[in-house]
Amino acid sequence: MSPTAPSPFTLAGRAARMNPSVIREILKVTERPGILSLAGGLPAPESFPIDAMREATARVLADTPREALQYAASEGFAPLREWVAAHLGRQGMTVSPGQVLITTGSQQGLDLVAKILVDAGAPVAVETPTYLGALQAFSPFEPLFHSVASDDHGPLPDAIRAVPHDAPGCRFLYVLPNFQNPTGRLMPEERRQAVVAAAQAARLPLVEDNPYGDLWFDAPPPAPLAARWPEGTIYLGSFSKVLAPGLRLGYLVAPPALYPKLLQAKQAADLHTPGFNQRVVHEVIKNGFLDQHVPTVQARYRAQRDAMAQALARHLPAGSEWQAPSGGMFFWARLPAGCNARALLPAAVEAGVAYVPGEAFYAHGGDPRTIRLSFVTLSVAEIEQAVATLGAVLRHHLQEDLQPPAP
Amino acid sequence: MSPTAPSPFTLAGRAARMNPSVIREILKVTERPGILSLAGGLPAPESFPIDAMREATARVLADTPREALQYAASEGFAPLREWVAAHLGRQGMTVSPGQVLITTGSQQGLDLVAKILVDAGAPVAVETPTYLGALQAFSPFEPLFHSVASDDHGPLPDAIRAVPHDAPGCRFLYVLPNFQNPTGRLMPEERRQAVVAAAQAARLPLVEDNPYGDLWFDAPPPAPLAARWPEGTIYLGSFSKVLAPGLRLGYLVAPPALYPKLLQAKQAADLHTPGFNQRVVHEVIKNGFLDQHVPTVQARYRAQRDAMAQALARHLPAGSEWQAPSGGMFFWARLPAGCNARALLPAAVEAGVAYVPGEAFYAHGGDPRTIRLSFVTLSVAEIEQAVATLGAVLRHHLQEDLQPPAP
Repeated sequence: MSPTAPSPFTLAGRAARMNPSVIREILKVTERPGILSLAGGLPAPESFPIDAMREATARVLADTPREALQYAASEGFAPLREWVAAHLGRQGMTVSPGQVLITTGSQQGLDLVAKILVDAGAPVAVETPTYLGALQAFSPFEPLFHSVASDDHGPLPDAIRAVPHDAPGCRFLYVLPNFQNPTGRLMPEERRQAVVAAAQAARLPLVEDNPYGDLWFDAPPPAPLAARWPEGTIYLGSFSKVLAPGLRLGYLVAPPALYPKLLQAKQAADLHTPGFNQRVVHEVIKNGFLDQHVPTVQARYRAQRDAMAQALARHLPAGSEWQAPSGGMFFWARLPAGCNARALLPAAVEAGVAYVPGEAFYAHGGDPRTIRLSFVTLSVAEIEQAVATLGAVLRHHLQEDLQPPAP
Repeated sequence: MSPTAPSPFTLAGRAARMNPSVIREILKVTERPGILSLAGGLPAPESFPIDAMREATARVLADTPREALQYAASEGFAPLREWVAAHLGRQGMTVSPGQVLITTGSQQGLDLVAKILVDAGAPVAVETPTYLGALQAFSPFEPLFHSVASDDHGPLPDAIRAVPHDAPGCRFLYVLPNFQNPTGRLMPEERRQAVVAAAQAARLPLVEDNPYGDLWFDAPPPAPLAARWPEGTIYLGSFSKVLAPGLRLGYLVAPPALYPKLLQAKQAADLHTPGFNQRVVHEVIKNGFLDQHVPTVQARYRAQRDAMAQALARHLPAGSEWQAPSGGMFFWARLPAGCNARALLPAAVEAGVAYVPGEAFYAHGGDPRTIRLSFVTLSVAEIEQAVATLGAVLRHHLQEDLQPPAP
């Protein structure tokens, strides 16, 4: 065969729908030294519990090394599933350990949910905007995305009632109620009640994603949607934000009727999540570690949130809009008229700062003036410097915009 | 909602094709104390390099804890990708690190390959019999399985030439040339040449799975198929059998034209394989550890293979057939006429021994007299006892079969 022979492979139709992650492509650029990145959703590495991890790995490899390194059950490590059920019980959910499926990060939960629920051409409803990783996880299964109009409190109940749910039927509404990625918004109690009532009336199941719920700054969020409609909701959780993402450990909670299919999809996908990681994390958290650890993460992120709020007020040009989030990892801002976030990104990176254009988070074309800014990766001093740089880039652009064209 | 309200969820059509793993259901039964299991494909836990793992985890958490616990590149840890490329180079392949994608076990590689290559209704060719986990990974994408007639050396070249490959075209032939799961067979050099020539002539791409290639007892296997047709082959490898499966660490090597789509599917599936695990494994293997470790695994498994060969000769009733494998983890046996492996399994488990009925490994109905026996989980003494018990169950059945029916 000559090296230029055409490839004998034929791509599946769904592969044409897979596009590179805008965020990850930007992250590659921002790995260059000297770039202050507000783009990535990377937790502060200073918050990782390294000493606890060291002790836990040593203990697991001393006490149960063979079990930790052997093949294991697809459902997950039983004591960890019990811990998850009890943890969610304290948040108002009634969960049996038998409903808990340990996943390789909560991203895998999105893949498994789509695999068992989404036929090609079936509608799937998402918030506006929504988590980019969910769009990427669902897209290979070729849904028709239906964008549900949303405000600062989340999806609008009237818009949920308007979702097409006749046969073949909208398969679910994907919703992220706590400190949403990308907007940082929190769904208040009244909206939760209204969203669940609208979804129940439409018999539209919910997929509730909650990676950030523990990262509250002022008060814990209201009870999950899953606590209000357990038989109609699949709930996704993660250890990435309260411990460390590099362990790739998440979980889902499914109604008993759905669990066997999700389990079979999990077996087919990777047999099981690494047992070593499951045992290490259980060893870290089993005696209440998170009760001490999470408040330290909250305090760190609250200070960074405050720093970004101050920096935005100080440096962003008039006409910019944002709200300070009450938890999580992200500010969502709208730049002044005349600013296109995607078009301005190269100039920003050139000046030494990166962000994610908000467009990436919409299933159907988004507001080109929006941007997502993470406040958890950089230090307070770096946040000030990064936002000052961003402000300078925007001011420079707006001034150029006002000047008459060069002769 | 009443607890008996019908579920609001609608399953995707593909979910109806997902069935529980026969092997895993049996494994559940065999977790009962007192059962000697020849069923599971579990590596001997005595072979796990626990001391090396302990040192490597301590070093990673001392030297690069934040990097190991942070989000990481979807492609995988660069030094590990370089190691894989160099390792495969010693087996006759020419691989750039840029072609290596680290996966969450090689099972995930099967899922990703099917996701980008299999449209519903497209043919996918498999050996007869074939790895059950591959059937499970491919099935959710709704291929039409085409069983390729095979003998003790692997798929028959004439049968490959007969695979339907017109549009929409057979997407690939899945093949496991080294110590195949379930048959233990090794594809010899001449067959490799003939299989590749037939596949090239048919422009039928290959998916080559090689989890067992390092576990040879007499001589290393011939060069991989991928070394002979790199632009037409996706190659899958694993650390599960040479280090430990509980780490869930595998890899695939793809032609450059396909790599970006596989990478996007990987991002959507779980963002990346745990970076902690990748760094720990790289730390274990980077200075030639496997050169000392793999021979100890080979020696252990060779002794177990010998014990099972002797036990089968001693205890299986006349009319049974098998061949001793020259590597890997499995014997494949055919029971005498009058024995149905699936029907006899409950009696065997009752007597204290488990195996996997061979039927499970066929895409289209298999020989009901075949069984798969793993020789790597039990000790030499336990293998003798397990096979003796199995022989007694078979003899008892055959005697009953010969007796006249009770009056």
